[in-house]
Amino acid sequence: MKDVLLDEKLRILAGLGADLRNRDFLLTWEHSLEEIRSVLLTAQCLRELDEAGRSIRVFDTGLAVSIFRDQSTRTRFSFASAAAALGLTPTDLDEARSQIAHGETVRETAVMISFLAEAVGIRDDIFLGEGHRYMQAVAAALQEGYERGVLARRPAVVNLQCDLDHPTQTLADLLHLERHCGGIDELRGRKFVISWAYSPSYGKPLSVPQGLIGLLTRFGMDVTLAHPKGYDLLPEVVELAAKQAGAAGGAFRVTHDMAEAFDGSEVVYPKSWAPIAVMRRRTELQRKADRTALADLEKEGLEENARFKSWHCDEALMKRTAAGSALYMHCLPADISGVSCPRGEVSREVFERCRLETYRQASWKPYVIAALIFLTRVPDPGASLRRLVEAGRPRIL
Amino acid sequence: MKDVLLDEKLRILAGLGADLRNRDFLLTWEHSLEEIRSVLLTAQCLRELDEAGRSIRVFDTGLAVSIFRDQSTRTRFSFASAAAALGLTPTDLDEARSQIAHGETVRETAVMISFLAEAVGIRDDIFLGEGHRYMQAVAAALQEGYERGVLARRPAVVNLQCDLDHPTQTLADLLHLERHCGGIDELRGRKFVISWAYSPSYGKPLSVPQGLIGLLTRFGMDVTLAHPKGYDLLPEVVELAAKQAGAAGGAFRVTHDMAEAFDGSEVVYPKSWAPIAVMRRRTELQRKADRTALADLEKEGLEENARFKSWHCDEALMKRTAAGSALYMHCLPADISGVSCPRGEVSREVFERCRLETYRQASWKPYVIAALIFLTRVPDPGASLRRLVEAGRPRIL
Amino acid sequence: MKDVLLDEKLRILAGLGADLRNRDFLLTWEHSLEEIRSVLLTAQCLRELDEAGRSIRVFDTGLAVSIFRDQSTRTRFSFASAAAALGLTPTDLDEARSQIAHGETVRETAVMISFLAEAVGIRDDIFLGEGHRYMQAVAAALQEGYERGVLARRPAVVNLQCDLDHPTQTLADLLHLERHCGGIDELRGRKFVISWAYSPSYGKPLSVPQGLIGLLTRFGMDVTLAHPKGYDLLPEVVELAAKQAGAAGGAFRVTHDMAEAFDGSEVVYPKSWAPIAVMRRRTELQRKADRTALADLEKEGLEENARFKSWHCDEALMKRTAAGSALYMHCLPADISGVSCPRGEVSREVFERCRLETYRQASWKPYVIAALIFLTRVPDPGASLRRLVEAGRPRIL
Repeated sequence: MKDVLLDEKLRILAGLGADLRNRDFLLTWEHSLEEIRSVLLTAQCLRELDEAGRSIRVFDTGLAVSIFRDQSTRTRFSFASAAAALGLTPTDLDEARSQIAHGETVRETAVMISFLAEAVGIRDDIFLGEGHRYMQAVAAALQEGYERGVLARRPAVVNLQCDLDHPTQTLADLLHLERHCGGIDELRGRKFVISWAYSPSYGKPLSVPQGLIGLLTRFGMDVTLAHPKGYDLLPEVVELAAKQAGAAGGAFRVTHDMAEAFDGSEVVYPKSWAPIAVMRRRTELQRKADRTALADLEKEGLEENARFKSWHCDEALMKRTAAGSALYMHCLPADISGVSCPRGEVSREVFERCRLETYRQASWKPYVIAALIFLTRVPDPGASLRRLVEAGRPRIL
Repeated sequence: MKDVLLDEKLRILAGLGADLRNRDFLLTWEHSLEEIRSVLLTAQCLRELDEAGRSIRVFDTGLAVSIFRDQSTRTRFSFASAAAALGLTPTDLDEARSQIAHGETVRETAVMISFLAEAVGIRDDIFLGEGHRYMQAVAAALQEGYERGVLARRPAVVNLQCDLDHPTQTLADLLHLERHCGGIDELRGRKFVISWAYSPSYGKPLSVPQGLIGLLTRFGMDVTLAHPKGYDLLPEVVELAAKQAGAAGGAFRVTHDMAEAFDGSEVVYPKSWAPIAVMRRRTELQRKADRTALADLEKEGLEENARFKSWHCDEALMKRTAAGSALYMHCLPADISGVSCPRGEVSREVFERCRLETYRQASWKPYVIAALIFLTRVPDPGASLRRLVEAGRPRIL
Repeated sequence: MKDVLLDEKLRILAGLGADLRNRDFLLTWEHSLEEIRSVLLTAQCLRELDEAGRSIRVFDTGLAVSIFRDQSTRTRFSFASAAAALGLTPTDLDEARSQIAHGETVRETAVMISFLAEAVGIRDDIFLGEGHRYMQAVAAALQEGYERGVLARRPAVVNLQCDLDHPTQTLADLLHLERHCGGIDELRGRKFVISWAYSPSYGKPLSVPQGLIGLLTRFGMDVTLAHPKGYDLLPEVVELAAKQAGAAGGAFRVTHDMAEAFDGSEVVYPKSWAPIAVMRRRTELQRKADRTALADLEKEGLEENARFKSWHCDEALMKRTAAGSALYMHCLPADISGVSCPRGEVSREVFERCRLETYRQASWKPYVIAALIFLTRVPDPGASLRRLVEAGRPRIL
């Protein structure tokens, strides 16, 4: 397989000099730009090989453990797909069916499931202040186990969505943007809008919008965050986005007017999330297990949302974007008016027109997860990638 | 591995010229006789290789997704066994634990789980008019995704039982019959009875009897369908069976007398199913979520069944078959009188005498599923099979 | 890979002449000392290879089925890890989601899930007189299926904990002891205490203490079983332990004083279990499905336990052991006072000091399970092990 582009990618990858070995991937902003770019390049290489019918298997055996503390379809399958493509056996820890209910500690469980594991993918996104902390606790336990000779290898903890960030989603989004714009350097100055949109559902996590402003501002994009008053994101992530935009020569601003945000934008990402005040109270009430107050809070949350039904991505709004043809993005599933609910985030017309493009956006996620496992677990990722390119097996014998 | 018979099978297979690549397998009667025979031959070859300790792995990696909308043990394990034997990772979509409850569309889910999948096996057999339609919707979404460049490969949808047909069961049944009779051409003229039998359970699907009359009539068998009045199968399948029997030089008739049906028969398949009128009302009530009416319907259905307790396969009935020694078949689990229920489809004596033979019948299913995935997904199945025969690896190193 | 120790192990293994092929592993005391030692040596070899980054994959494909009738985390993951490391696909039979509820017999299910399986791991430990019997029934069905030509291979039934024994736990414990003491022959004469300890939970199985006294007495250890009156183990296992201790030149005694048991001991294993009288009544009531009586029994059981809160492994007690520094062991999860419950089996101080050592103890379990599958299923285990040592693939390519 002679491929000039692949070869060029491998050369750039080597030049970046990033080293993710024996590390975790929890928040994009904890990683250098070189590390982020290495993930993107590796994901592109793995996808190119896979789509050319080449095997990207680098593990003869091993376990890839997933822990889903919230429902998931696409991330669950992306993780299983990535694991299987690399040669690992995906195995889910179903906490309801395990002994964890018996009072076992997180620290202990983390080690017990990891004796022959290469990666532990975790989704824990519902409660503010919980998910990231849980992932850190798992990572610390694995690090201790590795350093103290309990574990022969150090599995990577991969964040499959926490309360702060959703890196496998936003890196997939970034790859979709890169392909759409014709290169990572082409993102500079592009007008990107992440906007709140109405949804009849309650308690959607903040991690996607936070992840987007925390990642895209580093690539010099002109990022606008739009939401009704009260639907703020975590202030530390908003501050980080502003700082990063300044450093990268891009822009970042917050507005409370969806239509104005869409004016002249090149990419729009209209998506619902919960008011931060509701999320905070919910976490408190959950700790107290106060079911009555939780039910009241849900009712209030839905009523509050309903005040902003006009935050709806329809063709009229899309017409206001640059040349009336901004790229529409969504992490899926979208709340589609007249399809999945009477009134939601996006009109049936806009979604149907852009539907396959959102599927293409989603299609990057398995390769992002594969790249993260590859870079954290393979001893010499550059050499291994080169070997896959030069002498790889066909995927179907 | 020199094997004249295997070699002969590969020669016949090549001669059939069937091409199932990038297609689905939903209903046997949508496929040509050449395609059906290719599946049978491939299943036989894969089984022969496997039982000789040879690996039939053709995929280095990949996912085989299953969606079970109804309970299953044997089909679930047959699918997992087939996938694993071919080198694929079986992965179950548990709809209860996914985001599908959130209003995601079938079309979208189908694509989201399929980015690195080779096959999607589906069981959806309870509601008349639903299961086959669901499989068609999944297949259409995958086809669109493939044609529009969203999916790099086109996973095959494999029907693991719908409301119309149960092809992996009936093809396994056909292989069992072929071995029993000494060859596929030996089925011609053989007297086969698929008969309703009493069961104290409610709402058993029609797909097995429909699948049997829809498949076996194509091989020139003399097929009798026996059931009490009111327990008709779907009229279009019954018409199809009659037409096929005529074309193949066999016979097809319907009778309402179990004993008469058994007279002189060479193969009997006594098995319960629900009255079609009950199935239709049930589907309607289910759509309306009318729980009270559904409970009433179940009560009625059970009472109706109870009128036909004499439809019971016992030794007296078996004595009426040809030489008193017809082959007894069942898709399992059977309702065995005095074992799994006080009174069921078959007496303890008959079942115990034929038990291991029904296990042998079931043993074909993993190889049928493997053959379906093999023929739909391997670029040149004949060449790949030949390679497995000539230079294959041992299964245990 | 030149490794004198590995080479020496392979030589000893060959000398033992044990043959476990096509057999099950249900109770350690059903197996000769040569067989037990072969399992230990094989587990050590597989671990050494794995930790040196070598693949221990011997199966190109195949299924490893697990049936967990009780909750499990560590055994579930140990089984999946072992299966995957050997190249098998772990597949769980979830009885709640299968057709088993429909009245299918154990005998039939056993065969239906095993057509392409190499091993069936079973946990069924709650009801006295049930778990072992269930495993025997599964094994008998597989044996019949194999002998009568229904199954092309004979999957091994591996006991992942029954009402009598927990061999994968106690063999892991034995390997931990062997490493701790510096060799299997160094166990002779060592003072080992398995002691009941208080727990606020109800109905913990007897299989771990029974398994320990049933195994360690064969290696000449000086074994003390300590428990309050009424918390006896099954008399036949206690008799067996006494007999084995005599034959092996070791010792075995029962005491009802925890502190006295700890005096001068070199290894302590303080762990809760249920009074045998409670376990017996519970099994009876369960059969009658008498929920009220079961709830009353649980209440009584907890009250009875509470009389023995002083059976608590704290630093004061540990000081009484040999040089105040006995090895603390536990099968995990432990009931840790002030951590997982207000008052439990062990103080926070003792557990925290010994925590990583208990993790090391647990780390043997995947290799024990792998060794059991390896020895029962690989045609020439010694030759295969030698091949892995001499020419094995790296685990990461």
